[in-house]
Amino acid sequence: MTRQTPHTPSRFDEIVERRGTDCAKWDLMEPVYGVPAEDGLAMWVADMDFRPPRVVQQALERLAAHGIYGYPAGTRAQDEAVSRWMTERHGWTPDPDHVFTTHGLVNGTGICVDAYTDPGDGVVLFTPVYHAFARVIRAAGREVVECELTLEGDSYVPDFEAWDAQMTGRERMMILCSPHNPGGRVWTRAELEGWAAFAKRHDLVLVSDEIHCDLTMPGQEHLAMTRIEGVADRLVMLTATTKTFNIAGAHIGNVIIADPELRARFASRMGALGISPSSFGLAMATAAMSAEGAAWVDELRAYLDGNRRLFDEGIAAIPGLRSMPLEATYLSWVDFEGLGMSRDEVLERVETQARIAVNHGPTFGKGGDHFLRFNLATPRARVKEAVKRLQAAFADLQ
Amino acid sequence: MTRQTPHTPSRFDEIVERRGTDCAKWDLMEPVYGVPAEDGLAMWVADMDFRPPRVVQQALERLAAHGIYGYPAGTRAQDEAVSRWMTERHGWTPDPDHVFTTHGLVNGTGICVDAYTDPGDGVVLFTPVYHAFARVIRAAGREVVECELTLEGDSYVPDFEAWDAQMTGRERMMILCSPHNPGGRVWTRAELEGWAAFAKRHDLVLVSDEIHCDLTMPGQEHLAMTRIEGVADRLVMLTATTKTFNIAGAHIGNVIIADPELRARFASRMGALGISPSSFGLAMATAAMSAEGAAWVDELRAYLDGNRRLFDEGIAAIPGLRSMPLEATYLSWVDFEGLGMSRDEVLERVETQARIAVNHGPTFGKGGDHFLRFNLATPRARVKEAVKRLQAAFADLQ
Repeated sequence: MTRQTPHTPSRFDEIVERRGTDCAKWDLMEPVYGVPAEDGLAMWVADMDFRPPRVVQQALERLAAHGIYGYPAGTRAQDEAVSRWMTERHGWTPDPDHVFTTHGLVNGTGICVDAYTDPGDGVVLFTPVYHAFARVIRAAGREVVECELTLEGDSYVPDFEAWDAQMTGRERMMILCSPHNPGGRVWTRAELEGWAAFAKRHDLVLVSDEIHCDLTMPGQEHLAMTRIEGVADRLVMLTATTKTFNIAGAHIGNVIIADPELRARFASRMGALGISPSSFGLAMATAAMSAEGAAWVDELRAYLDGNRRLFDEGIAAIPGLRSMPLEATYLSWVDFEGLGMSRDEVLERVETQARIAVNHGPTFGKGGDHFLRFNLATPRARVKEAVKRLQAAFADLQ
Repeated sequence: MTRQTPHTPSRFDEIVERRGTDCAKWDLMEPVYGVPAEDGLAMWVADMDFRPPRVVQQALERLAAHGIYGYPAGTRAQDEAVSRWMTERHGWTPDPDHVFTTHGLVNGTGICVDAYTDPGDGVVLFTPVYHAFARVIRAAGREVVECELTLEGDSYVPDFEAWDAQMTGRERMMILCSPHNPGGRVWTRAELEGWAAFAKRHDLVLVSDEIHCDLTMPGQEHLAMTRIEGVADRLVMLTATTKTFNIAGAHIGNVIIADPELRARFASRMGALGISPSSFGLAMATAAMSAEGAAWVDELRAYLDGNRRLFDEGIAAIPGLRSMPLEATYLSWVDFEGLGMSRDEVLERVETQARIAVNHGPTFGKGGDHFLRFNLATPRARVKEAVKRLQAAFADLQ
């Protein structure tokens, strides 16, 4: 008799068909990448192939069943839920009155650019980083200042000395992605203090995008920028339920600002742009930030950890490839440089042979060139299949 | 045997409880106006106490049941539905590529202000008019230029000569509300041509807010501004499904721009602000603009016409009161000037005695002083009750 641990099936193992549901990740992979809808694997757009906690689905079903979808009363219940959630999960307590509920965080970032900078000003990014930042900054006629992260061993680290030398005095704002997308880093206290000091030294508004704060790997502890001393008077926090609970379609995000002057400037732009959240986003987000939601997130984190291990082992077995150690997020950043192949050949093998749609490194800015980003938030069987296909596509190297 | 027409009960007769559903109209009337939730009548916020067409509710239920609420694929299906709807219902065919799907029309208006004017510029409104326009214009640091409509008989008419004299050269944009909220006018071709010529004369971008275009009274024909000659190069059209189908909670609106330069400027601001619609708005709006949705709207218009007649008769029976003839919208604009009472006394009678929450005239700008706006989109029994209460509150005048 063998003494194997019995396999406990997870709710996250269920394959839910998303093709044909007006879904960006699965329905656009063929038009965008040429990866066939029929048997391609969608590992690009950063949402998950999982249902949210039952309590979220129930909130939406209740709304749907009531049948009147008029103007909602306000954001108070959501803002209070944000305050409780941050207290219980992250050790800081935002005042509900400091929470702005935006139309998602790309919108939140865009309003920050509007509120805190003028056309021609520089906005500092630490690259490679989430591609939408540069898009909204450039669309607003501001300059993207790319400060490149340094690869130390397998991971990204800041290089404040090099960045100090890059500053021209025209920079007004910086956006830090914490935890880091696409590198998967949970920044240490010392690193966060370094960024806070950098912001102070160059008199920058510090926008801390913490959308992945709930999605740390077991054992990792995310430190909110609000817990770093001396930065409150220049700090704008971005958080959301959309990434944590997989409700990005609801377009709802939180911009949390303790400083009265920064808050007033943001409020003025919110008012001028007529931004207030939809009933659907409000109901789902509020339901998500609950005890049931919290238990679900912990189960999810353990599952993502399993996916990550499986994927990392599979990638490590391909000579010349390596994936960054994932401390947070479900987005694996894979370095193809060691292959010595051209970008075109790598993409031919990943997209055409393995039929996997992934995000291309260069879209994340300086330093992203020879990377691809793989989304692991999918049932484990798909991660296994992706590994199998990648190993086959690069089998000649073994 | 009497030969009465049998009463056909309408689906719109059903009273759906909205209190306690995070609903602005019913849940905020007590905090905002002191009108008791227990037996007050909410006739303020412009949404309807009716369920949308069944096809809309089904679209939402289908989305809810699928259970994955990630990023939607795009707005193409919605934009094509807008094009078909405008063709079939309003005799003009927008190119789907000219449709921007915003986060509702207050947001759409705010983006127009950003895209077409600079701080300090004047934006012309024809007052009294929908209050949110002035709010977003002022929040953006632009000047509201109030051109007052003239009361001719029972209805508002434009006075272009007077308005020409008001222009200073600093005006860059105008917003026309067509059909008119709160006056209920369906502007004639001659009037619309007048506005087009006015825009041309003063070199203004003409933003035509046609959110109420579907809600005309039987026999009235709304004329889209796109059907007026010679204005296409300065025209921005605002339309929406939210008002027509009572889905304001979804925050979705259309900004339609045929002129390439105006379109590029709007697109640039949309991109900089990270605005794209939620899955819920997209699914509901697309479902609404269908044959089933169209049949429902026609049934709704007939029902609203019945409510309007009942209300107008009831108001006419109170000496000194008169309501404007409603050619479109479900918002009745009632003039209390003939009473010769102070505002406070009128409000004491309406809000405290009759326990009805209504919109106050002055919030609509110049010319609104002695008016109150009553929302008639509610089951007929409530309109009857409102009339009864108003007649009782002003019974000493009879």
